[in-house]
Amino acid sequence: MAGQVLAEAGAAGVHEDAGGFDLLAPDGTGYRVDVTGGVFHPDNPLLAEYVAGRRVVAYIGPTVDRIYGKRLRDYLTARLEPGSWSVHTIATGEHHKSLTSVEQVCATAKAAGLDRHGVMLAVGGGIVADIVGFAASMYARGIRYIKVNTSLVGQVDVGVGVKTGVNALHTKNMFGAYHPAHASLNDPALLDTLPAREIRCGLAEIVKMAVILDGDLFRTLERHPDAFRRGPSSAAASGTAASGGDVETYIIRTAMRLMMEELCPNLREHELARLVDFGHTFSPVIETAGGHRLAHGEAVAVDMALSAHLARLLGLADEETCERIVTLLERIGLPVYDPATCTPELMTQALRASWQRRGRKLHLVVPTALGKAAFVDELEHLPTETLRAALDALADRAVRRDG
Amino acid sequence: MAGQVLAEAGAAGVHEDAGGFDLLAPDGTGYRVDVTGGVFHPDNPLLAEYVAGRRVVAYIGPTVDRIYGKRLRDYLTARLEPGSWSVHTIATGEHHKSLTSVEQVCATAKAAGLDRHGVMLAVGGGIVADIVGFAASMYARGIRYIKVNTSLVGQVDVGVGVKTGVNALHTKNMFGAYHPAHASLNDPALLDTLPAREIRCGLAEIVKMAVILDGDLFRTLERHPDAFRRGPSSAAASGTAASGGDVETYIIRTAMRLMMEELCPNLREHELARLVDFGHTFSPVIETAGGHRLAHGEAVAVDMALSAHLARLLGLADEETCERIVTLLERIGLPVYDPATCTPELMTQALRASWQRRGRKLHLVVPTALGKAAFVDELEHLPTETLRAALDALADRAVRRDG
Ligand SMILES: NC(=O)c1ccc[n+]([C@@H]2O[C@H](COP(=O)([O-])OP(=O)(O)OC[C@H]3O[C@@H](n4cnc5c(N)ncnc54)[C@H](O)[C@@H]3O)[C@@H](O)[C@H]2O)c1
Ligand SMILES: NC(=O)c1ccc[n+]([C@@H]2O[C@H](COP(=O)([O-])OP(=O)(O)OC[C@H]3O[C@@H](n4cnc5c(N)ncnc54)[C@H](O)[C@@H]3O)[C@@H](O)[C@H]2O)c1
Ligand SMILES: [Zn+2]
Ligand SMILES: [Zn+2]
Repeated sequence: MAGQVLAEAGAAGVHEDAGGFDLLAPDGTGYRVDVTGGVFHPDNPLLAEYVAGRRVVAYIGPTVDRIYGKRLRDYLTARLEPGSWSVHTIATGEHHKSLTSVEQVCATAKAAGLDRHGVMLAVGGGIVADIVGFAASMYARGIRYIKVNTSLVGQVDVGVGVKTGVNALHTKNMFGAYHPAHASLNDPALLDTLPAREIRCGLAEIVKMAVILDGDLFRTLERHPDAFRRGPSSAAASGTAASGGDVETYIIRTAMRLMMEELCPNLREHELARLVDFGHTFSPVIETAGGHRLAHGEAVAVDMALSAHLARLLGLADEETCERIVTLLERIGLPVYDPATCTPELMTQALRASWQRRGRKLHLVVPTALGKAAFVDELEHLPTETLRAALDALADRAVRRDG
Repeated sequence: MAGQVLAEAGAAGVHEDAGGFDLLAPDGTGYRVDVTGGVFHPDNPLLAEYVAGRRVVAYIGPTVDRIYGKRLRDYLTARLEPGSWSVHTIATGEHHKSLTSVEQVCATAKAAGLDRHGVMLAVGGGIVADIVGFAASMYARGIRYIKVNTSLVGQVDVGVGVKTGVNALHTKNMFGAYHPAHASLNDPALLDTLPAREIRCGLAEIVKMAVILDGDLFRTLERHPDAFRRGPSSAAASGTAASGGDVETYIIRTAMRLMMEELCPNLREHELARLVDFGHTFSPVIETAGGHRLAHGEAVAVDMALSAHLARLLGLADEETCERIVTLLERIGLPVYDPATCTPELMTQALRASWQRRGRKLHLVVPTALGKAAFVDELEHLPTETLRAALDALADRAVRRDG
């Protein structure tokens, strides 16, 4: 399906149409990412078409199963051959993103009679997608998998790329594969049931894309910091009752497109200077040294606020840019400072670890304007005094705000 | 290195030169396979050049370590930076080809400080290559690995392709990846120490290539059924004292080239009708139902003999072709019949399993002349009586020969 569209389109890049995006990478890798409504409505042919009559083994986390499991099974019953599919719940949570879970996923598939022509289906957030995607990459040396991304991070981040993986040896995503999904289905209406904190974490990644690449998206987020909030209270507060409003569709599709355009020339991450690493230099240490008190997206928000201040202090961004970034994060409800981990010592440690990871270059991404960013490539270009001053500015702001 | 040669050559295919082969697949995958002498001689720059200053973690089985471990360490000491490499033994044997071994290989690499820019080096037969190759495919979502293939199967079969994998869920190569090695180094002199039975198993795969593709290679094998036999007795018997004689170089290089040409358009095995599956339809059941009394290459030999008789009975090959194939296998010292497993029931079961595996087509490869083969695609084209008659012919021959 994607293949045909791409053959016509020809050129490498990201091609958007009403139903989603086709990506064709310079190395020949191509895949499609769909944006659809009512993904489990029996009238929606998409998922069944991608299955294309093959045997399917589906995996779903317990929470998503509780909310969408019946709809999923009804869909499969309505559209697939009886006996050609089964649905299995798998444990979620970051500590279950392990090789053991991958083995269980494979054992379940084997018991269900899946051979190399079969399909694994992941229904859930990034955890389920990463586990099942990695399992599919190794099962019989690689079979098809389809992901239905149910979280905001799942749709704007996991759903648009080719990475899979699990944690091991005390390291996040230590084992994995670059294994493009056969299909990636994204239904924004599924986000209606997502907890507010998960929405905020997804918005952190969207703010990231806006800051580095798209001033218009940034200004839209400024006008709608409560986008995607559908809880009983917030839905009323935001005044938008139905899901998938125009604004939210614009936000989600723009974020997806920007992310795909950034990934496209660098799908397998050979290039180590990546703009999408904005917010991902200090955050690993903020997450781990903080004992995972902050979720990933929250740590990314703190990192972005810190990076914005560094940009200001280095004279790369003006004060207004820095201020608007930090303010937007706050209005979304994301943290912009974490006293326990935002110490010069830990943040220096984070810089060194990034430097190591990125092939002995810093490649710190800092905003230069709203929708524009640059790299600070060398450790020497970031004096400890500057780091200290940026941390002080964040601390002052927290004091001013909280007490 | 390979990349440059291929860029010049341009066209997809296999390009041979004095030092080995470059393969460029239609999907853009390209890699080089080297044939070299004195691979661990400090004057041989090849291995060190492929390492290219990166950190190396090497893995070697106990037997190969006993024979070549010192030479390997001396080489690394002579040619690499001190502290940039380490050598580790890993357990071999088919039952150690497991995900657990892969995890251990990765844990060892992590402890040695290997990051995504590092290199894993596999020194050994197919077992070590398959384990380490799969580990490298998943470590940090895929790092470089280099294989030095020390067995005959390793050189003519494992060394020329991109497959890696381990056994799991009671299935051979259940988990794995298509992960081209950064370099594949093949030194025929290493085969001097290989046990005779392992040589025979390698020869079975070479006979396979000769039968399906190359009458000249077949006739060379007929003249030299004791090729590669270097044991104290056989070296004397064959009259060739030095390793890597002209004949053996011709045999090994021809087998490698033929195999690469067959793999090239079908590296990831999307095409299920493969000539290189000659000898690999009945053999899985001969191996497993026989409790692994026969080694893989021995079961392949029995399968080839059976397939040759089927070809004769179906009128696809003449008697002489069939006779010469079976005779060559016998002269090499390979079995051509296994009374315990060569029953119509078990062989029918093997046919059904292949039919299932190959997308509900039989794709049984049978010789039609020396150097030519065809597919029997449908189960119905192989009546049970014909199977029974072929098995009877093999049984009669065994009786005539042995008693
Ligand atoms: N492969 C990639 O490219 C990539 C990119 C970014 C993140 N990740 C990985 O993804 C993981 C994080 O993904 P995530 O944020 O989706 O976490 P997640 O999978 O844990 O999902 C978040 C939570 O939301 C729940 N949930 C999901 N969809 C829901 C819905 N529609 N309604 C109600 N609840 C729902 C889940 O049960 C879970 O509790 C991390 O492990 C991260 O490493 C991978
Ligand atoms: N990846 C592929 O494309 C591919 C292709 C064919 C086979 N295989 C796999 O390879 C494995 C079989 O490989 P193999 O036949 O090399 O078996 P192996 O790795 O077990 O080696 C055979 C034996 O020979 C010993 N040995 C190896 N080199 C030696 C040397 N130079 N001198 C003395 N002893 C030596 C080993 O210690 C071992 O005991 C199987 O697991 C099979 O599935 C993989
Ligand atoms: Zn992130
Ligand atoms: Zn074989």
